[in-house]
Amino acid sequence: MGKPYVRLDKDNAAVLLVDHQTGLLSLVRDIDPDKFKNNVLALAAAAKYFNLPTILTTSFEDGPNGPLVPELKNMFPDAPYIARPGQINAWDNEDFVKAIKATGKKQLIIAGVVTEVCVAFPTLSALAEDFDVFVITDASGTFNPLTRDSAWDRMSQAGAQLMTWFGASCELHRDWRNDIEGLGALFGAHIPDYSNLIQSYIKNTEKK
Amino acid sequence: MGKPYVRLDKDNAAVLLVDHQTGLLSLVRDIDPDKFKNNVLALAAAAKYFNLPTILTTSFEDGPNGPLVPELKNMFPDAPYIARPGQINAWDNEDFVKAIKATGKKQLIIAGVVTEVCVAFPTLSALAEDFDVFVITDASGTFNPLTRDSAWDRMSQAGAQLMTWFGASCELHRDWRNDIEGLGALFGAHIPDYSNLIQSYIKNTEKK
Amino acid sequence: MGKPYVRLDKDNAAVLLVDHQTGLLSLVRDIDPDKFKNNVLALAAAAKYFNLPTILTTSFEDGPNGPLVPELKNMFPDAPYIARPGQINAWDNEDFVKAIKATGKKQLIIAGVVTEVCVAFPTLSALAEDFDVFVITDASGTFNPLTRDSAWDRMSQAGAQLMTWFGASCELHRDWRNDIEGLGALFGAHIPDYSNLIQSYIKNTEKK
Amino acid sequence: MGKPYVRLDKDNAAVLLVDHQTGLLSLVRDIDPDKFKNNVLALAAAAKYFNLPTILTTSFEDGPNGPLVPELKNMFPDAPYIARPGQINAWDNEDFVKAIKATGKKQLIIAGVVTEVCVAFPTLSALAEDFDVFVITDASGTFNPLTRDSAWDRMSQAGAQLMTWFGASCELHRDWRNDIEGLGALFGAHIPDYSNLIQSYIKNTEKK
Amino acid sequence: MGKPYVRLDKDNAAVLLVDHQTGLLSLVRDIDPDKFKNNVLALAAAAKYFNLPTILTTSFEDGPNGPLVPELKNMFPDAPYIARPGQINAWDNEDFVKAIKATGKKQLIIAGVVTEVCVAFPTLSALAEDFDVFVITDASGTFNPLTRDSAWDRMSQAGAQLMTWFGASCELHRDWRNDIEGLGALFGAHIPDYSNLIQSYIKNTEKK
Amino acid sequence: MGKPYVRLDKDNAAVLLVDHQTGLLSLVRDIDPDKFKNNVLALAAAAKYFNLPTILTTSFEDGPNGPLVPELKNMFPDAPYIARPGQINAWDNEDFVKAIKATGKKQLIIAGVVTEVCVAFPTLSALAEDFDVFVITDASGTFNPLTRDSAWDRMSQAGAQLMTWFGASCELHRDWRNDIEGLGALFGAHIPDYSNLIQSYIKNTEKK
Amino acid sequence: MGKPYVRLDKDNAAVLLVDHQTGLLSLVRDIDPDKFKNNVLALAAAAKYFNLPTILTTSFEDGPNGPLVPELKNMFPDAPYIARPGQINAWDNEDFVKAIKATGKKQLIIAGVVTEVCVAFPTLSALAEDFDVFVITDASGTFNPLTRDSAWDRMSQAGAQLMTWFGASCELHRDWRNDIEGLGALFGAHIPDYSNLIQSYIKNTEKK
Amino acid sequence: MGKPYVRLDKDNAAVLLVDHQTGLLSLVRDIDPDKFKNNVLALAAAAKYFNLPTILTTSFEDGPNGPLVPELKNMFPDAPYIARPGQINAWDNEDFVKAIKATGKKQLIIAGVVTEVCVAFPTLSALAEDFDVFVITDASGTFNPLTRDSAWDRMSQAGAQLMTWFGASCELHRDWRNDIEGLGALFGAHIPDYSNLIQSYIKNTEKK
Repeated sequence: MGKPYVRLDKDNAAVLLVDHQTGLLSLVRDIDPDKFKNNVLALAAAAKYFNLPTILTTSFEDGPNGPLVPELKNMFPDAPYIARPGQINAWDNEDFVKAIKATGKKQLIIAGVVTEVCVAFPTLSALAEDFDVFVITDASGTFNPLTRDSAWDRMSQAGAQLMTWFGASCELHRDWRNDIEGLGALFGAHIPDYSNLIQSYIKNTEKK
Repeated sequence: MGKPYVRLDKDNAAVLLVDHQTGLLSLVRDIDPDKFKNNVLALAAAAKYFNLPTILTTSFEDGPNGPLVPELKNMFPDAPYIARPGQINAWDNEDFVKAIKATGKKQLIIAGVVTEVCVAFPTLSALAEDFDVFVITDASGTFNPLTRDSAWDRMSQAGAQLMTWFGASCELHRDWRNDIEGLGALFGAHIPDYSNLIQSYIKNTEKK
Repeated sequence: MGKPYVRLDKDNAAVLLVDHQTGLLSLVRDIDPDKFKNNVLALAAAAKYFNLPTILTTSFEDGPNGPLVPELKNMFPDAPYIARPGQINAWDNEDFVKAIKATGKKQLIIAGVVTEVCVAFPTLSALAEDFDVFVITDASGTFNPLTRDSAWDRMSQAGAQLMTWFGASCELHRDWRNDIEGLGALFGAHIPDYSNLIQSYIKNTEKK
Repeated sequence: MGKPYVRLDKDNAAVLLVDHQTGLLSLVRDIDPDKFKNNVLALAAAAKYFNLPTILTTSFEDGPNGPLVPELKNMFPDAPYIARPGQINAWDNEDFVKAIKATGKKQLIIAGVVTEVCVAFPTLSALAEDFDVFVITDASGTFNPLTRDSAWDRMSQAGAQLMTWFGASCELHRDWRNDIEGLGALFGAHIPDYSNLIQSYIKNTEKK
Repeated sequence: MGKPYVRLDKDNAAVLLVDHQTGLLSLVRDIDPDKFKNNVLALAAAAKYFNLPTILTTSFEDGPNGPLVPELKNMFPDAPYIARPGQINAWDNEDFVKAIKATGKKQLIIAGVVTEVCVAFPTLSALAEDFDVFVITDASGTFNPLTRDSAWDRMSQAGAQLMTWFGASCELHRDWRNDIEGLGALFGAHIPDYSNLIQSYIKNTEKK
Repeated sequence: MGKPYVRLDKDNAAVLLVDHQTGLLSLVRDIDPDKFKNNVLALAAAAKYFNLPTILTTSFEDGPNGPLVPELKNMFPDAPYIARPGQINAWDNEDFVKAIKATGKKQLIIAGVVTEVCVAFPTLSALAEDFDVFVITDASGTFNPLTRDSAWDRMSQAGAQLMTWFGASCELHRDWRNDIEGLGALFGAHIPDYSNLIQSYIKNTEKK
Repeated sequence: MGKPYVRLDKDNAAVLLVDHQTGLLSLVRDIDPDKFKNNVLALAAAAKYFNLPTILTTSFEDGPNGPLVPELKNMFPDAPYIARPGQINAWDNEDFVKAIKATGKKQLIIAGVVTEVCVAFPTLSALAEDFDVFVITDASGTFNPLTRDSAWDRMSQAGAQLMTWFGASCELHRDWRNDIEGLGALFGAHIPDYSNLIQSYIKNTEKK
Repeated sequence: MGKPYVRLDKDNAAVLLVDHQTGLLSLVRDIDPDKFKNNVLALAAAAKYFNLPTILTTSFEDGPNGPLVPELKNMFPDAPYIARPGQINAWDNEDFVKAIKATGKKQLIIAGVVTEVCVAFPTLSALAEDFDVFVITDASGTFNPLTRDSAWDRMSQAGAQLMTWFGASCELHRDWRNDIEGLGALFGAHIPDYSNLIQSYIKNTEKK
């Protein structure tokens, strides 16, 4: 009963970052911009940390949608970068799907702007081709909560798993002993409360 | 596992606008009136833009429920217009169902007032007759969020897909190259943030 | 796919009002008390209007939970009234289940306080015995939204349909022509916006 | 005790629209964009309706702030238009203050983006020169409610009166008999609920 | 420092109910309709209970604004009833001011729809003529919280005291010993929580 | 300009706890009950910690309002306890005012249920007699935020200072060196986050 | 259709408390800290009251995560206590799973910090091994509501039942007659409203 | 009438950063941690950008309150740093006041944790000594909105001006022509929406 536990596996996962463009970001109003920016960069940092194959795609960079946010471009200089000529559903773009299939991974971690289009459409298409899809909800944004809730329902009912960048990172890491420093640094850089815990800890333990 | 991806297809979709009447609209309090009016008109504009067969229906126009909002009437002067004599579930009205079946479409895009009645009842009836139903949640309104959440749950569990006017438009369009100007105009007219992006773009690119 | 459309039928439905007691009502904080009182009385009025067999039950009236709210007692003087000696799940009380089965109805409309206990437990028990259960969410209250959302999820996943008193009334009535005056009066008495529409209508049409 | 009643007087009031530019508008997140756009256009329409001298000003149109929203430009083709070369407080721009003083009005109705800067600074400056200042709060937007609340407190404590476009319009009009049609049209165009009332009224009264 | 304590005195207070009309009520969206209706009727009941001279006024009853809500009309059949021919600020209507002055009271308790116009304008006018004004905030409604907050600030800064129907009733009553039954009945009829306390109390004390 | 800084002084302050009764507490819906109970007990604990003279008063304990919450009774067995026979404004009760004046303190720290009555009335009366009044807003509760905001405005405009139990405790204590352990224990007992900081600190520093 | 009613059975249930550590608790921002602390202690008290085998586990107590909150440690001095050396999913720790299996129970009641990791991961693992899992949502906390909603969806879709500490206690108890005093004391200690009802009841019934 | 316009002047202003310590930050729950961290660092960056004398102070760094957040320490290596031995109101610390007076500035820009204590106390003390105080509300945090609102009211009534880091920066800068690049970089680094505008602008203008 219920969906089986398909667990994120860092050896079998790829990351898709869809349409995080400077113009489109002004449409995102279901998450505060400071937090949203942080979430997107945290997901990107996790992708790098776990060495996951990462694929970037954009829609009409030369028009009002604007260019990909420069931070993402800089973090993944060698990643496949598919500037789609017009397809709204990135999955309709052959190069995009080829790039995904070239990774050989079955688990797709996806985030983008806006949720009900740039995330939901390729999510539904990928599920239809039997990929396991993990939607990173807090690195995906849209017009308002009502729209988000509708999109989540559609994706969840179709079999997608809803996760956040922190949960996905933990599931990928499995065990702190794999690398305490690295994961701690990742969390400290993107979670102020966690950074504070670490600073207090250092202060208190070094004292004596 | 999960619902399959039934994708909106402009050659196989019809739009049902149920009971957007001037009296009933005063009952809608789960969406701000400025935004709700905009969402309803945007859905209507999308229906026209994609040339989808559209069916209008009302309940007791001559009583307190009031007439259909004049904007909708004006936009679809030749659409089937079923003023129901009493049936609360529009699907119980033979003319309404006939009009739908006359379109020959299997995908029904529906919105109305109030969500848990005028939208949910025909949605459930249509699903029972194996139509694919796409509820446009942001062009459907009701008394309060608690009522809305209950109605969404009932419809989703029965197999309806929850979408918004923007997501539906994008899924219908498939590819910007089919018509950039037209879709851009539709979005610019109904999304102030998008209109601003376009204006800034024009200003900045024409400058040099 | 999805739950089939089990439609409320006034000839096959009974109403269960569980533990709307003056003490327990002070625990309800997920709905404003003015609105909650109105919703409960509206559901009760609908039960009377449609002549649905109605069953009242309470838990420990002689202790801090307090007596049944007097309005309900007065509206249903002849209804089965099961003051449970201790069973928390009303379905564990034989008299309660007997009273339900004596009605011969397969559709159970249920509301109560608090949602996750007094509503959810008999709902799950009734579903297990193949009743169709319609939870009236806005006449059921509990400690806070987080608790409510958990309870709704548990009941929905088990097969219950989430409705509100207005939606249920509309589904029971089917067609305004069955009785315009009566249903209008029910709505006018419990929906201020609707009452205002009626008053404006009368004023405007009588004028000429 | 308390501020005296300085009442808006259409023969003694001017309107200042400050920095409603397509780029800056993406910073406004304390009011929903659909509603905000409507409020700004409603204030502009009221300024026109009451023939109030209106002054437009912008900051760095040629940079990221973007051009003035075209609707405002089109509505006031002959209004003084001060494209400030750098002054953040519009009151620091001599042409702006000259244009205001040229109107000979003592009452300034002001709105702009963002509230705590483009509205608050000239408001405080104008109060210091003994103008009466009426801040149109719902046509002024900023980053978030916390920022707005701080700005309102600063302006109110300095003697500004906080109003909205509807309240200001009513205070300017004084008596419906001055022009029922015109004001009704203004309200109907910008308040969907009001438009619905009018449509229901027409339908109901024409019926007989 | 600060405003002195001007205390409500039932021998020196009059009540003004401004424009609670069936059409205008559809504009009120800063308070839930169930609660708002209850608050207005509770204030009216308090006015009757304390025998305070009460004045009713409306704006354009024959147009879209609709008639006064019938409950108020029925509760005050003999009260001065000023159907204003056009003045938006009721204080601009001579009959209204005359009726107020005829009561000989210096304390005015006021509520109405919409807050920033129908309440704020006469409040500011009355303060300017040295009346003490008590705004009943929870029996006054308007478009949204932003508008309400602006209106409250304007009235408070001008010297009005912001109260609610319950607080005003308590200040008017001064001492429960003046009449326990009557005030208890008033509260029980309009505060479900209070009614529940009374019912539990009766049940528990009668038991032994 | 502005109110001068009247600073809480533990040698010149008394605490008034007004009507925290078991029945009346069910009316409090502007603060969550878990938090509200904690705030009231924290204020009481601070009163004890600083040895401030404390006065308890109740209204109709033998009726539906219910008895004083037992925790307060137990914490102040020897405090003046004025069970008012009927006065709603505690300041109208001679014994209450006498008890206050007997303390010889000029600074009154007050909290109670409900804010706009049991707190606001004696606050306004005390200000009129030139006491300095510090309202503990988070240990005072009422029906809803709208009521609270109205009451705060009335009290603040009359010269009361709005504080919370934590701020008042800090201002009374002045310097941690007066007693680190005691104040730390007070905060740890009533602020889970603070308690967690202390526990982490102990753990981390003892480790080495 | 739907999940069957798997009902909590006190003879077949074990409780898992995962990572309620003083440092990690500072990350919890989807529930107010006063309420969250109360919920966790209430669940722990229920576990003790029903004599359910309880298992404690922590992650890196010696680092920034901090020690287990001392209240839990003190309440379960003899419970299995698994300080995990690094596994993020507690189910990956053999000792933890062994301890669970040693109880011989099939129903697992689980709560922890943070929801999407420390609760969701072992929940999904346990479901995969055919345990029945009951997530106590109000004793589990995380960064924000968006994260919580994602985690709830993932767990519910996988077959977990979402409950709260109060609902779980009621389902475990089945019948008040099993022990009125004990359960009443449990509720009174953790639900202020319930405690108030009891105190009012005692006062009112002892009076005569 | 009203407070005069005391305008921030970069030649007459100093910045006070009070108790932004890693432990105390876990108490801040009225602003999201991502946004709060950004606001604090933005204020610090503005202080540096305008070369304002800046004073840091902390309370009990060696205890649970934790050390100053390292970013602030690093940004102001040469600033006066007053680790207070116990005074809760920083103004009670002679070194702190001396450091302020040594700057020779009359305008104090202040932010800290928690608002009602570490910000409000020195604010009130400074106002009493005729400093002009500008509270940076969005770089000051506390337990919850209710506490914040109380603290704001107390400070505003005493004559403080409530501002945010962005508004203060704009008022200090006066004119973009003083330095476009620098201020643009400051805003771009701390306002994602602004950064997006800049990136889109660069892309669009470089294109041709």
